[in-house]
Amino acid sequence: RPIVDCRTANRTVSLPGLIDMHVHVRDPGATHKEDWASCTASAVAGGVTIVCAMPNTTPATVDNATMQTVRNRAATMARCDFALLAGATMLNAQSVKTIDGAVGLCMELDYATSHELRIEDLTVWMAHFENCPPNMPIVVRAESKTLAAVLMMAMMYDRAIHVCALSRREEIMVVREAKRRGAKVTCGVCPTHLFLVEDDIEKIGDKLCSIRPRLATSQDRQALWENIDIIDVFSSHHAPHTKEEKEKEAVPGYPGLETMLPLLLTAVNDGRLTIEDLVLRLHTNPRKIFGLAEQPDTFVEVDLDRTWEIPESLPHTKCDWTPFKGHKVRGAVSRVVIRGELVYLDGQVFSDPGSGKEMRVESSL
Amino acid sequence: RPIVDCRTANRTVSLPGLIDMHVHVRDPGATHKEDWASCTASAVAGGVTIVCAMPNTTPATVDNATMQTVRNRAATMARCDFALLAGATMLNAQSVKTIDGAVGLCMELDYATSHELRIEDLTVWMAHFENCPPNMPIVVRAESKTLAAVLMMAMMYDRAIHVCALSRREEIMVVREAKRRGAKVTCGVCPTHLFLVEDDIEKIGDKLCSIRPRLATSQDRQALWENIDIIDVFSSHHAPHTKEEKEKEAVPGYPGLETMLPLLLTAVNDGRLTIEDLVLRLHTNPRKIFGLAEQPDTFVEVDLDRTWEIPESLPHTKCDWTPFKGHKVRGAVSRVVIRGELVYLDGQVFSDPGSGKEMRVESSL
Ligand SMILES: [Zn+2]
Ligand SMILES: [Zn+2]
Ligand SMILES: [Zn+2]
Ligand SMILES: [Zn+2]
Ligand SMILES: [Zn+2]
Ligand SMILES: [Zn+2]
Ligand SMILES: [Zn+2]
Ligand SMILES: [Zn+2]
Repeated sequence: RPIVDCRTANRTVSLPGLIDMHVHVRDPGATHKEDWASCTASAVAGGVTIVCAMPNTTPATVDNATMQTVRNRAATMARCDFALLAGATMLNAQSVKTIDGAVGLCMELDYATSHELRIEDLTVWMAHFENCPPNMPIVVRAESKTLAAVLMMAMMYDRAIHVCALSRREEIMVVREAKRRGAKVTCGVCPTHLFLVEDDIEKIGDKLCSIRPRLATSQDRQALWENIDIIDVFSSHHAPHTKEEKEKEAVPGYPGLETMLPLLLTAVNDGRLTIEDLVLRLHTNPRKIFGLAEQPDTFVEVDLDRTWEIPESLPHTKCDWTPFKGHKVRGAVSRVVIRGELVYLDGQVFSDPGSGKEMRVESSL
Repeated sequence: RPIVDCRTANRTVSLPGLIDMHVHVRDPGATHKEDWASCTASAVAGGVTIVCAMPNTTPATVDNATMQTVRNRAATMARCDFALLAGATMLNAQSVKTIDGAVGLCMELDYATSHELRIEDLTVWMAHFENCPPNMPIVVRAESKTLAAVLMMAMMYDRAIHVCALSRREEIMVVREAKRRGAKVTCGVCPTHLFLVEDDIEKIGDKLCSIRPRLATSQDRQALWENIDIIDVFSSHHAPHTKEEKEKEAVPGYPGLETMLPLLLTAVNDGRLTIEDLVLRLHTNPRKIFGLAEQPDTFVEVDLDRTWEIPESLPHTKCDWTPFKGHKVRGAVSRVVIRGELVYLDGQVFSDPGSGKEMRVESSL
């Protein structure tokens, strides 16, 4: 499938528009970390043409009013397409299904960053599972025992869930067995846990390294790679904080939109993944899980052979650091076209704020 | 069914021998807290004719050698019949089924008191569920999310489990729903959580009150009573520590063998339970869950009308305190007969150490 660039002799591949299922846009509420314009610039620079925005904004996206606030921000500022998620709270199990345009319900079951999104009581989990309609995917952040606990809910209610960011061997093994036995579960991993381990903490720095799920062991990372066949989705979990905030408070989260695809393309070059593996996990499966329409005339052209070193920070995010600084990668985004318009070419973002469209669940679902 | 004593005019009822599914005998390892002779004296004084011994002895009961040590102690000293459980460890998932005479496998999933019984990794839970034969009941201690997590294992492997000591509303609601949807789960509660709440901590004292599961709210207690129909088992969770040890280290656990039945008979007198409710939860269901034979010619005669106040400590346990001190109860054990022999009458234990027999899983199972 790759074609060879006649000027550089590099192999070039065209991918469909990538869907990043898990992005913390920080807008509204913390626009010094990122806003819809900078986040979506970072997205297209990373080959992402649909950003799925997590609800832990300030205020959190938990009802029609807050959803409309997010929508207004995104509609004015987004440079690529976007889809919006609603967050589960202790109080909105009955009403969350009425939120206009929410493509999924996000349940943060371990480390809710926003107090409002903390749902500790199993009866509230049950209320959400009972009330969330089948065409509204439930997307959960849950580790270890909490992951098993929410899989119990999925089995009990015979309800599909998507679990984000597996990071440990035990998690991948329990999801593998649950899938084998017919549970309706899909799962994602973040490049963070495919490429970094706790041994990297010393080099990167303790406070910068703070992330949820935590960096795991090299055995855990190996288990993710060995079981890559049951991983349905890759997503960046882009969660920018300034270096100053990290150094001061060790707030959890890394930027990731501009580094995800280069890191994964490097794995393709290393023979650990195929281009088909990437397309499945960054386009086909996320699209299916959220029931999104195809973006017509949309593609991402990547240079499989460009080698570069990840710098101290990436050019398009507001985030002024990256945990991948110094990683040598082979693979880069050359060109991104959304709905026939050139939005990115060789380092430059061309799409205007407000050109992005909201993606909703396809009416056919 | 009650008959009236012609001397006292008190109502008297005859119950089958009670089975206490969850007793920490402390022998071997901590015989200053309790030993097989004192524990089983306490048992018969409480109307219990089969003590099911939990494996967190020292050494923990986790293989044939340690099981034989416990059996030797019990065979020499027990004054009533007994059944022995094996404990799940990180290492014995393959071998635990070969332990001779273990009537069940105990998995302590929240607060393992013995380091050896701590099993943190979900893959180890899975190994135990995969290897434990169907005729070896799995008995779990798991609260809240951990409870949901182990219910997930039961559903995934379509395997029966018994969960001990529900204490919170969320737990009873999730078990109710799981049962309704066909999960193979039975559950128990301890009188502690039916009769005490966190508001009692002040009166009893912070350190004495330490227990797992923790004392819950009055809303939680109310939920247990309102859902008593789905509670399969009452068990004492007898877990003696000396008052000195409690005051010093706040080690978790209460004695309970001598107070369980009087407290429950008081609830019968209050109209909150029936005698049939007790027999089902203290005899019929525990017998079924462990697959134990009937004890022939065995019964417990209780005086439904004797009123008394629970003293500072009970006479037959070594434990020198009780959290129920000062509770006024109506109901007392008058007489206990095991296999035709009088073992208890009006405050006195007559059975000799070594007269108790080991109960094993019935061969027909
Ligand atoms: Zn996600
Ligand atoms: Zn996230
Ligand atoms: Zn497609
Ligand atoms: Zn950055
Ligand atoms: Zn128990
Ligand atoms: Zn116990
Ligand atoms: Zn019977
Ligand atoms: Zn006592």
